[in-house]
Amino acid sequence: MADRHADWIAADWGVSHLRLWVMDAAGQMLDYRRSDRGTGRLAPADYESALLDLAGDVLPPDRATPVICCGAAGTRQGWAEVPRRAVPCPPGGIEGAIRPATRDPRLDMRLLPGLRQLRPADVTEGQETRIAGWLAAHPGFDGVLCLPGRQSRWAHLSAGEVVSFRSFITGEMFALLSRQSVLHPSVADAGLDPAAFTEAVAHAMSRPAAVAGDLFTIHAESLMAGLDPVVARSRLSGLLIGIELAAARPYWLGQGVAIIGTGEPAYAYAAALAAQGLTARRGDGEEMTLNGLRAAYAELTG
Amino acid sequence: MADRHADWIAADWGVSHLRLWVMDAAGQMLDYRRSDRGTGRLAPADYESALLDLAGDVLPPDRATPVICCGAAGTRQGWAEVPRRAVPCPPGGIEGAIRPATRDPRLDMRLLPGLRQLRPADVTEGQETRIAGWLAAHPGFDGVLCLPGRQSRWAHLSAGEVVSFRSFITGEMFALLSRQSVLHPSVADAGLDPAAFTEAVAHAMSRPAAVAGDLFTIHAESLMAGLDPVVARSRLSGLLIGIELAAARPYWLGQGVAIIGTGEPAYAYAAALAAQGLTARRGDGEEMTLNGLRAAYAELTG
Repeated sequence: MADRHADWIAADWGVSHLRLWVMDAAGQMLDYRRSDRGTGRLAPADYESALLDLAGDVLPPDRATPVICCGAAGTRQGWAEVPRRAVPCPPGGIEGAIRPATRDPRLDMRLLPGLRQLRPADVTEGQETRIAGWLAAHPGFDGVLCLPGRQSRWAHLSAGEVVSFRSFITGEMFALLSRQSVLHPSVADAGLDPAAFTEAVAHAMSRPAAVAGDLFTIHAESLMAGLDPVVARSRLSGLLIGIELAAARPYWLGQGVAIIGTGEPAYAYAAALAAQGLTARRGDGEEMTLNGLRAAYAELTG
Repeated sequence: MADRHADWIAADWGVSHLRLWVMDAAGQMLDYRRSDRGTGRLAPADYESALLDLAGDVLPPDRATPVICCGAAGTRQGWAEVPRRAVPCPPGGIEGAIRPATRDPRLDMRLLPGLRQLRPADVTEGQETRIAGWLAAHPGFDGVLCLPGRQSRWAHLSAGEVVSFRSFITGEMFALLSRQSVLHPSVADAGLDPAAFTEAVAHAMSRPAAVAGDLFTIHAESLMAGLDPVVARSRLSGLLIGIELAAARPYWLGQGVAIIGTGEPAYAYAAALAAQGLTARRGDGEEMTLNGLRAAYAELTG
């Protein structure tokens, strides 16, 4: 049982996780909870019970509690598909949210829409709410956000709107190649060697096609020369982030960039940009997501 | 029980499979067998019993039968590590083969060595035997072999030797991205649209760095515009093979190329090269592997 009931719940429901914050009416967090029941392992009929398992005890019995949710739960592979809003437009907010069917009367579920871009075709799946959280904390910000993750996003913001954005599957490729490919035995589970990393970034940026061969070279050097596993991991990460930086150059070159995220991926992007002479600002990803969900809730109740 | 006992056994033991040919003294195939007990699912102590499970019934009881084996079984992640031979050198052959410890007196096991290259660091894991099989069938061949697979190889052959070679993890990346990444729901399990494929090859060859973003575009177009799953699969394949062709350009540009393999991957490489104005010769991969194993057995007994 919870000490206190929720006034509302903020939720970030991604492919690999469900994170939620139990909130009071003043916007203060009463509790934080997390489960690995992400959309990747749920069928549409499973969502309501997954949510109740994690947060049923904080729902007051006598009313419907708003649950403001961003992320993959609002996509075709999730609970229900929310039509995305087309850029340029302000990111996040409650506009366009849908209420999927629920049986428990204590739930007032709201799935927030992602963004879409026609050319090049692109979509966000929760990152729009994180971007909205950054804008709420930094009104008037004009520049570029870099959001590392399973898929990273680069978004150009101006006058409170997302002007354009691009997604890269770099994080997912890194996870698949380091854990499941021929490279797996060569690559450490953790650790980053800054010199090996930035050298690989520079190499990939100057010769992006060569990356196709450089990846196997990691395996060969490991076999033939006992390449250090942390160096191998750093080189794999650097090659993949380097090719992304080359493709995303119009986003960061000559721009003010902020990286939204914590941990090694955000550190890696910061180090890669620093090697290009660019000092990026930093923001906390979960904090920005909660900020964005707060802003959407404020619109709902305001 | 087998109709006839083996005089010797030819084996190709890779990460995902064990293929073997039961042979008579004249080099004719008596039987072909296949198992999914590849090195990826075996510990060193499991190899002997895996082999006996598949072929114990064809071993004569009164003598040791040579088993000539190429592939990942002879690597550090396999049964026993065979020191590789350095290029330039003739591919394949029995020279440098090792005999791993076995308990069953009916087995005379021989693991063939792969090739290694110092700069850029590279190794083969069975492909050297396939190359030797091609050379046995085409003595005097001077040109380039392309060997599609989990990892593809490009090898420059001259005067009966492998001069240099390069490996690419393209096949493995295609399998991981199409089956396990965010792209999975967008991508058909089979089928190739030639126009979408060659367009993606050309795009990746001219702008290799852009591939980092083009991959996610497949997902976005699928969501937003209902991209045909076969077109999506063709584009994914074309982008990855295109970036490989850009990196391998010194191997194929202005060279006589033969593609060793069958099925869709070999067809895809042939189509990609054809779009660059290059008509490649073709060879059957399993047949060339058996050719190469035959040549090694001939050296052993000759």
